[in-house]
Amino acid sequence: MSEEISFGSDNHYGVHPDVMAAIVRANSGAAHAYGEDAYTERAVEKMRAVFGSQADIFFVFNGTAANVLSIQTLARPHQAVLCTTCAHINTDECGAPEAMTGCKLISFPHQDGKWNSQSLEQAERVILDNLAMAPHRTEPKIISLTQTTEFGTVYSIDEIRTICAFARQHKLYVHMDGARIANAAAALGVSLKEMTEGVDVVSFGGTKNGLMCAEAVVFLRPGLGQAFPYLRKQAMQLPSKMRFLSAQFDALFTDDLWLRNAQHANQMARLLEKALRPISGIKITRPVEANAVFAILPADVIPQLQKHTFFYEWDSSLHEVRLMASFHTTQTEIEGFAKELRRLVQPTS
Amino acid sequence: MSEEISFGSDNHYGVHPDVMAAIVRANSGAAHAYGEDAYTERAVEKMRAVFGSQADIFFVFNGTAANVLSIQTLARPHQAVLCTTCAHINTDECGAPEAMTGCKLISFPHQDGKWNSQSLEQAERVILDNLAMAPHRTEPKIISLTQTTEFGTVYSIDEIRTICAFARQHKLYVHMDGARIANAAAALGVSLKEMTEGVDVVSFGGTKNGLMCAEAVVFLRPGLGQAFPYLRKQAMQLPSKMRFLSAQFDALFTDDLWLRNAQHANQMARLLEKALRPISGIKITRPVEANAVFAILPADVIPQLQKHTFFYEWDSSLHEVRLMASFHTTQTEIEGFAKELRRLVQPTS
Amino acid sequence: MSEEISFGSDNHYGVHPDVMAAIVRANSGAAHAYGEDAYTERAVEKMRAVFGSQADIFFVFNGTAANVLSIQTLARPHQAVLCTTCAHINTDECGAPEAMTGCKLISFPHQDGKWNSQSLEQAERVILDNLAMAPHRTEPKIISLTQTTEFGTVYSIDEIRTICAFARQHKLYVHMDGARIANAAAALGVSLKEMTEGVDVVSFGGTKNGLMCAEAVVFLRPGLGQAFPYLRKQAMQLPSKMRFLSAQFDALFTDDLWLRNAQHANQMARLLEKALRPISGIKITRPVEANAVFAILPADVIPQLQKHTFFYEWDSSLHEVRLMASFHTTQTEIEGFAKELRRLVQPTS
Amino acid sequence: MSEEISFGSDNHYGVHPDVMAAIVRANSGAAHAYGEDAYTERAVEKMRAVFGSQADIFFVFNGTAANVLSIQTLARPHQAVLCTTCAHINTDECGAPEAMTGCKLISFPHQDGKWNSQSLEQAERVILDNLAMAPHRTEPKIISLTQTTEFGTVYSIDEIRTICAFARQHKLYVHMDGARIANAAAALGVSLKEMTEGVDVVSFGGTKNGLMCAEAVVFLRPGLGQAFPYLRKQAMQLPSKMRFLSAQFDALFTDDLWLRNAQHANQMARLLEKALRPISGIKITRPVEANAVFAILPADVIPQLQKHTFFYEWDSSLHEVRLMASFHTTQTEIEGFAKELRRLVQPTS
Repeated sequence: MSEEISFGSDNHYGVHPDVMAAIVRANSGAAHAYGEDAYTERAVEKMRAVFGSQADIFFVFNGTAANVLSIQTLARPHQAVLCTTCAHINTDECGAPEAMTGCKLISFPHQDGKWNSQSLEQAERVILDNLAMAPHRTEPKIISLTQTTEFGTVYSIDEIRTICAFARQHKLYVHMDGARIANAAAALGVSLKEMTEGVDVVSFGGTKNGLMCAEAVVFLRPGLGQAFPYLRKQAMQLPSKMRFLSAQFDALFTDDLWLRNAQHANQMARLLEKALRPISGIKITRPVEANAVFAILPADVIPQLQKHTFFYEWDSSLHEVRLMASFHTTQTEIEGFAKELRRLVQPTS
Repeated sequence: MSEEISFGSDNHYGVHPDVMAAIVRANSGAAHAYGEDAYTERAVEKMRAVFGSQADIFFVFNGTAANVLSIQTLARPHQAVLCTTCAHINTDECGAPEAMTGCKLISFPHQDGKWNSQSLEQAERVILDNLAMAPHRTEPKIISLTQTTEFGTVYSIDEIRTICAFARQHKLYVHMDGARIANAAAALGVSLKEMTEGVDVVSFGGTKNGLMCAEAVVFLRPGLGQAFPYLRKQAMQLPSKMRFLSAQFDALFTDDLWLRNAQHANQMARLLEKALRPISGIKITRPVEANAVFAILPADVIPQLQKHTFFYEWDSSLHEVRLMASFHTTQTEIEGFAKELRRLVQPTS
Repeated sequence: MSEEISFGSDNHYGVHPDVMAAIVRANSGAAHAYGEDAYTERAVEKMRAVFGSQADIFFVFNGTAANVLSIQTLARPHQAVLCTTCAHINTDECGAPEAMTGCKLISFPHQDGKWNSQSLEQAERVILDNLAMAPHRTEPKIISLTQTTEFGTVYSIDEIRTICAFARQHKLYVHMDGARIANAAAALGVSLKEMTEGVDVVSFGGTKNGLMCAEAVVFLRPGLGQAFPYLRKQAMQLPSKMRFLSAQFDALFTDDLWLRNAQHANQMARLLEKALRPISGIKITRPVEANAVFAILPADVIPQLQKHTFFYEWDSSLHEVRLMASFHTTQTEIEGFAKELRRLVQPTS
Repeated sequence: MSEEISFGSDNHYGVHPDVMAAIVRANSGAAHAYGEDAYTERAVEKMRAVFGSQADIFFVFNGTAANVLSIQTLARPHQAVLCTTCAHINTDECGAPEAMTGCKLISFPHQDGKWNSQSLEQAERVILDNLAMAPHRTEPKIISLTQTTEFGTVYSIDEIRTICAFARQHKLYVHMDGARIANAAAALGVSLKEMTEGVDVVSFGGTKNGLMCAEAVVFLRPGLGQAFPYLRKQAMQLPSKMRFLSAQFDALFTDDLWLRNAQHANQMARLLEKALRPISGIKITRPVEANAVFAILPADVIPQLQKHTFFYEWDSSLHEVRLMASFHTTQTEIEGFAKELRRLVQPTS
């Protein structure tokens, strides 16, 4: 399956031209393998300029690896990760977190993808119960939040602070699954440093924001990442020709490409929302805060509309679909999509 | 550390121009993620034309993953993999095979990297003992050979047939770690299909032969690879933008680029051997059969020569060094290296 | 902490005298280790007479091991176990199922500990979704039910049949966590064979029914248990002096001691229920169907009553307590407990 | 297979009468489960009186568990355990150490079961190489020695000190597999405390010394065992009716039963050696220092002699057999065995 336009996912598009150019430029002469090269040094420096000089930064191939290795570095097999029921680590990584780290995931209800005060209260009860029941229950060690969430919403700075305070109170590490962290920073208009204050480790997403196959794990406090190099190698995530991953991050952190790509994608999602709202029979189901639009469409329209532009039905029982904008999405594509949707809906309205 | 010339490893060089061109070409429009795209279909077809239509072929990011997933697909945690003491899976993957699959590696002596009749006899005794001692000992399930070996030697077709017959006799699967399988095929002048007859699964190396970050796992008999898609995802080795890995293999299997690159590297190694042999005080220690030259150099010469062209000291107790030629190595580089070595050696002779 | 009387758990009491006598008798002369002894042969034969001659039966030290090894024998790490949220495997085994097998547990709501039609419907949706989302989601492979449940209720034969039919429809194995299976058989008045028809593997509980430290894993269909001996050894559950575990099961299956013990415990729980029901301010919260009584007590009464006879507060937010009767519980103990409770409750009413 | 006399293993005999009496005595009234009982407290106190008040002591079901949990508590999956090729953890635990902990075992040659200066030198080279090759190779973290060894020999205090000094120099923990540690203490005539000075964790064997199914893990320095309770539960090694394991250790540490049993077994082995040495055609192959006699017997004699008294052929290529004496072995049994051997050998001499 290949097509010209897709709202299926932000990873349905390829590589940003600046990133591709950097990859091509990196293809010169010899370099030491496994990250002992000048490209990696430079990319890490550029990211440290954003996250702070104390940050330990490592590159891996993909997002599942970034999440799993974040967890494994900070927790042992008898410990637990608290997450929402819809967390990517809980639903879409084929059990990798449990199988690779031994840790148990304990999941809690969410509101549009987010932890809220009720789910944190529920988590507190589980933490206290589990500790009281030690060693029969796992020891809660990490709380994970996804920014932007799996439903395209964005935690505010205050919400993040609340989760971090909760974590400190209960001696948990904070993991931020930032597969789309750039979209969140763009949405909030804050720096990455400000957004991750109080967080211990970030899975920094690159692939969904215009890279080819590169994510970063960012440990924000000194010492936390000590075991990472060994664990990454053992987890089969140490690229020999690392320079080609590093070059991608170098480009992404040149002239804030990460932010520009995210801003564009977010803007396209807002356009899409604006185009869909007026169409009768369409219900926008989640706050559109970053680059995703969730909507309920008439059931019979979905397969026809997918022929025009591909997208996924997120919840087939509700006919709720997910429309993702990317760095590559254009206004024309959105207009074409909305036009087609109007055409399909009209006869039935 | 970055340099212009390196004999350190065949992964110290970047990407072959044809491969880079294919990557750039693949960067157009949208495509389904995770391998459901036309690029992947085409690359798999091209490889099936070489390995046979019954082959199941999957792409992963790197060689450790190809090896680990080959093992995990064919063995359960209470089973064992027989390998040589110098096997890459045994020495240089940070324990990934054991940690990821639960399987035990049982290692046997080698001759210049190869299984031979003595080590196979020894393996037979261990197999019979282990079965007699069941369930106290692991159940031997896989025998792994590396082609070309970690010492740059090449199994002949007869030697491979012998190992496969041994495996059939003892109900073992045969895994070929083919990180440099192309160099072996080039050396033997046989097809990949002929060279892998009787083998069950191959880790087909791309990265050391001019790709950026892509290896293939090739199951040669129907049904063996059934669990692979799940296990790959769980092992964090399913790329979202798969097309960029597939495009690399497409290029590699266009006009036999895999073979041409390997032939070139092998020829450069032969030139290097020829240039080194006459130099006094230098001892070639292993048969030069593919793209590696192992040699003992005078101890004091090594650090000075490394300043000219980087390479690794393989066994520091013997001052045995490894010199790897790649698709990118040139005759000029070899001549320059030999000249420098002669210059360094002369005053001491 | 040690006391004379406890309703804390059916494992708070020791070993039935017949079982202890069998252990003492087994202490004679030498015997081969690891289960190759006459005691084990005889105990397995006695259990086969109950479960059918096709059954494969193995002994392990404890219930967590029986559950984990049941799962690991039938599922690979990329597969999933469906269970209720309150399942012992999900809540009280410190993450052993995930850490030891790699499998993901997917949990569903329960009614008084049981799967019901709503949770099965929900499970069906998850199964279909997960298969549609392969390989991003784990492959559902086992459905687990606990008989008697964690809330002391008992699945009827019809309810078990329904779950087994569901499993067959979706190609799942059925695992019955039978830590208290004897109490269920006693409650239903059916044979173990009848109760486990359609089930694939049973964790057969001994320790809570008068044994010292022994559970059995019973594979009910030929071939299913093939890998078990290896996996048991690797999971550190192969006792060297196996005869002392086997002797326990021999005694348990002599003159239906398993049934008599369970009948007694169930009867004591009914007496306890009867004694509590009339007491004002006490609410029996779950159907009393086997050897557990769940009740809400006045908050201030709980710690005082625990001084008289130990028991656990099951849900501290509700002040719901669990009172377990065992093979050892006496009518006098129950009467004394009820009397003390009445004494404590009266002043506050 | 069951018999009256066996030299097969010290676990072919049952339970010492004092231990059985303690088990029977412990069968009274209720007790909290999972080790929160007075029996456990007392047994731990008695062992602390021997090992020092700083020791953390935990009971598990068997020796494989004691070894695996010792390793898992002190090492993470990317770390390695150095052991001899003949170490029980390396050969006879069905790969449990690797599968359960993720750690790699790296094995070295032994002399009659022991580490010696050559193998320590070899280990030093591997440690330095592995650290130089980080993160491609595992990080050496534990050195394991077996006391008494798998060949029935005993490390002297000086030899243990040498290994401990080596460990400190290279920042390794020292694990002592003490499945037969009592026999070593009896042989050396030193206290357990003196023998384990410098050691970090001991797998203290009970089952081979007259217990039913109980081993202890003894952490000798404060803090090392912190994660143990969780890891033991997750590893399925937390007995609910712990008091019956604790009672065994209580008996073993009453009036030095552990030492008396070991002294007896050692004395019986010496008698056996004395009886065998004069017989023509018999070669004692290992120093007889504790309760094992290794000897080469005429090939045709072995099966006939096994009919008289069971024992194992240890190395079938050499016809080297292992004869184990236990707390239960008698002088009469030895005399009968020697007589039969003489009878069988004579006709052939």
